[in-house]
Amino acid sequence: MIIQLSNNITPQQKENLLNQLSELNIKSNEVKTQFRNYIVGIPKVDFDIRTIGNMEGIDDIHRVSDDYKLVSKKWKTERTIIDLGDNVTIGGHELAIMAGPCSIESEEQIENTVQHLLKNNIKIMRGGVYKPRSSPYAFRGLGMDGLKLFYQHCSENGIKVITEVMQVSQVEEMLDYVDIFQVGARNSQNFNLLDILGEVDKPVMIKRGMSGTIEELLASAEYVFSNGNEKILLCERGIRTYEKAYRNTLDLNAIPILKEKSHLPVIVDPSHGIGLRQHVATMALAGVVAGADGIVVEVHEEPEKAFSDGQQTLYYEQAEELYNKARSLNVVFEYIV
Amino acid sequence: MIIQLSNNITPQQKENLLNQLSELNIKSNEVKTQFRNYIVGIPKVDFDIRTIGNMEGIDDIHRVSDDYKLVSKKWKTERTIIDLGDNVTIGGHELAIMAGPCSIESEEQIENTVQHLLKNNIKIMRGGVYKPRSSPYAFRGLGMDGLKLFYQHCSENGIKVITEVMQVSQVEEMLDYVDIFQVGARNSQNFNLLDILGEVDKPVMIKRGMSGTIEELLASAEYVFSNGNEKILLCERGIRTYEKAYRNTLDLNAIPILKEKSHLPVIVDPSHGIGLRQHVATMALAGVVAGADGIVVEVHEEPEKAFSDGQQTLYYEQAEELYNKARSLNVVFEYIV
Amino acid sequence: MIIQLSNNITPQQKENLLNQLSELNIKSNEVKTQFRNYIVGIPKVDFDIRTIGNMEGIDDIHRVSDDYKLVSKKWKTERTIIDLGDNVTIGGHELAIMAGPCSIESEEQIENTVQHLLKNNIKIMRGGVYKPRSSPYAFRGLGMDGLKLFYQHCSENGIKVITEVMQVSQVEEMLDYVDIFQVGARNSQNFNLLDILGEVDKPVMIKRGMSGTIEELLASAEYVFSNGNEKILLCERGIRTYEKAYRNTLDLNAIPILKEKSHLPVIVDPSHGIGLRQHVATMALAGVVAGADGIVVEVHEEPEKAFSDGQQTLYYEQAEELYNKARSLNVVFEYIV
Amino acid sequence: MIIQLSNNITPQQKENLLNQLSELNIKSNEVKTQFRNYIVGIPKVDFDIRTIGNMEGIDDIHRVSDDYKLVSKKWKTERTIIDLGDNVTIGGHELAIMAGPCSIESEEQIENTVQHLLKNNIKIMRGGVYKPRSSPYAFRGLGMDGLKLFYQHCSENGIKVITEVMQVSQVEEMLDYVDIFQVGARNSQNFNLLDILGEVDKPVMIKRGMSGTIEELLASAEYVFSNGNEKILLCERGIRTYEKAYRNTLDLNAIPILKEKSHLPVIVDPSHGIGLRQHVATMALAGVVAGADGIVVEVHEEPEKAFSDGQQTLYYEQAEELYNKARSLNVVFEYIV
Repeated sequence: MIIQLSNNITPQQKENLLNQLSELNIKSNEVKTQFRNYIVGIPKVDFDIRTIGNMEGIDDIHRVSDDYKLVSKKWKTERTIIDLGDNVTIGGHELAIMAGPCSIESEEQIENTVQHLLKNNIKIMRGGVYKPRSSPYAFRGLGMDGLKLFYQHCSENGIKVITEVMQVSQVEEMLDYVDIFQVGARNSQNFNLLDILGEVDKPVMIKRGMSGTIEELLASAEYVFSNGNEKILLCERGIRTYEKAYRNTLDLNAIPILKEKSHLPVIVDPSHGIGLRQHVATMALAGVVAGADGIVVEVHEEPEKAFSDGQQTLYYEQAEELYNKARSLNVVFEYIV
Repeated sequence: MIIQLSNNITPQQKENLLNQLSELNIKSNEVKTQFRNYIVGIPKVDFDIRTIGNMEGIDDIHRVSDDYKLVSKKWKTERTIIDLGDNVTIGGHELAIMAGPCSIESEEQIENTVQHLLKNNIKIMRGGVYKPRSSPYAFRGLGMDGLKLFYQHCSENGIKVITEVMQVSQVEEMLDYVDIFQVGARNSQNFNLLDILGEVDKPVMIKRGMSGTIEELLASAEYVFSNGNEKILLCERGIRTYEKAYRNTLDLNAIPILKEKSHLPVIVDPSHGIGLRQHVATMALAGVVAGADGIVVEVHEEPEKAFSDGQQTLYYEQAEELYNKARSLNVVFEYIV
Repeated sequence: MIIQLSNNITPQQKENLLNQLSELNIKSNEVKTQFRNYIVGIPKVDFDIRTIGNMEGIDDIHRVSDDYKLVSKKWKTERTIIDLGDNVTIGGHELAIMAGPCSIESEEQIENTVQHLLKNNIKIMRGGVYKPRSSPYAFRGLGMDGLKLFYQHCSENGIKVITEVMQVSQVEEMLDYVDIFQVGARNSQNFNLLDILGEVDKPVMIKRGMSGTIEELLASAEYVFSNGNEKILLCERGIRTYEKAYRNTLDLNAIPILKEKSHLPVIVDPSHGIGLRQHVATMALAGVVAGADGIVVEVHEEPEKAFSDGQQTLYYEQAEELYNKARSLNVVFEYIV
Repeated sequence: MIIQLSNNITPQQKENLLNQLSELNIKSNEVKTQFRNYIVGIPKVDFDIRTIGNMEGIDDIHRVSDDYKLVSKKWKTERTIIDLGDNVTIGGHELAIMAGPCSIESEEQIENTVQHLLKNNIKIMRGGVYKPRSSPYAFRGLGMDGLKLFYQHCSENGIKVITEVMQVSQVEEMLDYVDIFQVGARNSQNFNLLDILGEVDKPVMIKRGMSGTIEELLASAEYVFSNGNEKILLCERGIRTYEKAYRNTLDLNAIPILKEKSHLPVIVDPSHGIGLRQHVATMALAGVVAGADGIVVEVHEEPEKAFSDGQQTLYYEQAEELYNKARSLNVVFEYIV
């Protein structure tokens, strides 16, 4: 249920409304656009919508019959731009590039990567400190100790941090050390995590599930948005199919379709997508032409020594070549198109 | 790393071992079989295994090179039987039957279902109080209020409760009102949840992920076991394929393969599997012949009025026919085979 | 377009009708049920249906708006039974069992297999003489020489022959040496082959395509039926999914759905399905309970020496155990159900 | 088995060799590279390779242990360029563009399309005269009558014809009216058809199967090559997955991988791939950046009136915009890369 507030709603009217929602056991979140203010109400049980519709200070009210509404173009036609501060934005004309290792491994590795990024004018560093691993016996990441070092080195150098959050209880402790929360493919439908990320004031990048549909990805984003956080990035990272010539089937079809249906920026992850170092750059560039607003790639000083995902991680020189091509292509392509 | 303790290890030796593991930043859990005691150590970083191997009170020590070991037949050859108390077991000769609505909806519905189960001598009731839903606007379940009612009516009637837990923070509050925790398909690789469920003394049923491999399901079970809880049920509930003539592709192939690789009981869920009421019973019976130790089915007094999953929910009469056939088939099939 | 003829249509009226269809460039085939006679017309271009509807000797005429009609229960409600002669039928109460090697390899092997079948009262032998192989360098079968030997030994012993036909030009030369034509998974949508098989008077077993939908399988069967041959068997043999723990995902869900939608008998092929010898029997039995009218399994005196598919081929003793169990289960199951 | 002939083999030695192969029941085909001559022998049964290896006029002989060899980079490192005559080539620097309707519908439509192609300097026209259709009741194409008109109008205007061949018997009658034979997705493993197309002197474009692997596509191409025809195009046209937001999952990952493994040109078909008119151009351009040597797209004067595939067919203006962008991107991209 989305309630459109009158522009001249009084504080008392608003309080009455929120009280009424609370009495009806309806969870409510404020959602704003540049023009109007709304309350999104998520009812736990059925109720008579007229008990709210007749209240004062309300212009309009309607049920949400689709799985998602706020993240769709029906809700907002202009494209969303995520502002990370310090002139770093995602979703505008400039191509956003996020790069870094699969896992944060050591302070030395962080510092080394930061230098690589500075040299190439990359403003966002990726790196996992909580690693979802199929087996309990695999390396699971350095945790908060790693994250603090990661954030410290980045923030000192004007670089933004994106890292994966795996569960609700981590959100609060990570909050001060993260610029973008990443929700991994395995958590793409972890609805409790999505709910809580809707309550923080940090952007959230949601990866498409291993076999997630495009509709499900948008509905997951709706969880975040309907809880009040509209800073959302959608990420295509490959789906699981029968084909075994590569790691995952990077589904570039998803990019134009997501951009048709939603106003949110779309990021492509070719490292997890095709999963083969020698083809990562090619698929990243194809993703740019397919309409991606940004790319996220794995890079490491010595990929063969990486704790995880080495075979899909770029060498520094490969990565630099990719950054240059991607930026050129992004500029040129606007003229062609 | 699995450390086999000497049968005559002294309390002091054991304390020394645990201290040493703690110093090495290795998370340790005790795991017992009927014959021996073990410590499973999950190291955060690499270390020299000899620093432990030379300690007193230890018979043997080895690294785990596979994704799973404890849940496999290499670890234990005889089949695991889960004892729920009150003579309710899963994994033995008798077929386990779990039945109930998709969602717990009201006290009246609980009571009605309990009567249906009592009439048919069904000892385990299923029902969701936390519902993972693709869309934030769908019914998400009655939560703890519903669970308490659910448990109260069941325990008064000698019926065990299985219900889904969606996140870490729910485990503690649900603990006293649950006989089996269910991990849903979307949480099949929610490793934090699996870790914490490894620390409780209640059985856990893990559903195969939407596009989860058999290997991944076993590795998820290993998370629970390596944290000290060996009461695990594996559940086949259908995978996502291209075919749209039914809801999911119930993969009965998984049953003989899981039983070949693992000593854990296997449950089949035809309701979510084929997802069409008229074929649920047929697939349940095929699952029994494929080797399932139990079935879990959705049943409702008035499926067309169910809050969720109505189209795959059996009418009482259909369910009763299925219970009878499944039990007969299970008995007869032992003679045939 | 299906034209229902009057019971008292005159030869002259029928000739007029066929001439008119021919003039309109409409391919026509006669199709009979036990009660009525029909002409199925497949137009090459659009035309005015009234130019036929007004002719004499016609009771009714209607366009086919679905992908299939004749193979559906809308066309015929009672189940089709295929009569192979000599009291061998498929689709009735008795379970049909087809067994034999993947490939016909030698006269000795044929004779050896025939003895195995006779001993177990199996009436239908399978064996490939034209083998579709991914690579041109693999063994492609003995061709017509092999088929003639195959048929000779079988017919002398009252055993029916089922074998794969790969292309249109083979149909005529194979016709006298085959009791059932098999269309393989890779040819499931070879429409020219299906058309021509609709014109012969031998049963046809169509395997579901590698990633064929249930709807497509029925539409492929409609090709055969609409050309005049209603002796059709549908075969589920496993679909291609992401899972690699077995060869193909034998989709037993397809069996109850095919039997709900169509009147044609359904055969299950667990050998190509799960593709692992130790689980073939289990899946065959599950298939029987799922409603299959018959099973087709690969068996060989020495599977490890088989020219192809050895790892999914049963030893004689394994096969004998399966035959007995399958027959018992089929009988018992009728009583249970 | 590939037999490398001596450069100075005598006619008599060659005749002896061919006779010997024939006696051993080995099918043999001559295959040439720019430097050397070879005989590819496909044995029907096992034999002693030394009986050939010792013959005169032979430099080397080896078994083919992989599924394919001739189409791989191990056989030939430089990229294959297909020369269609009249300065039309595929596989060189210039991007090949093939465009036209799904089905040839009328002479008027052919002429209209030809004018559209001439205006845009497109040298290859696509159009089906034999249409594989799931249902027997759907439009199956105009056949040879349509093809003759199609070829006549194209050849008069210097335009090459690519059209689908569905079965062996059509090859000969179509031969004089076709510049490139297309093998459709459903026939991707129709090995008899591939064999016969290996014997003609016309290029063959093989589409990847509906759920065909990359390895299988290359092995299908090997069928054509090992029969003596090395003019082969590989076509990615989308695979079947669980996602239903579009028609097929156009798998652009296949392009860099095919170009890594094989020397053959790769064509991308975004029309059947994503299957949605509004996204065809985007995916075509992404395909160019992924490395495709050419694109094949469906275009129609009035797509909404097309006999088939209308929803994925471009309007003329859309197509013209795509041609221009694709050519510009192809040129620019070489400089960027």
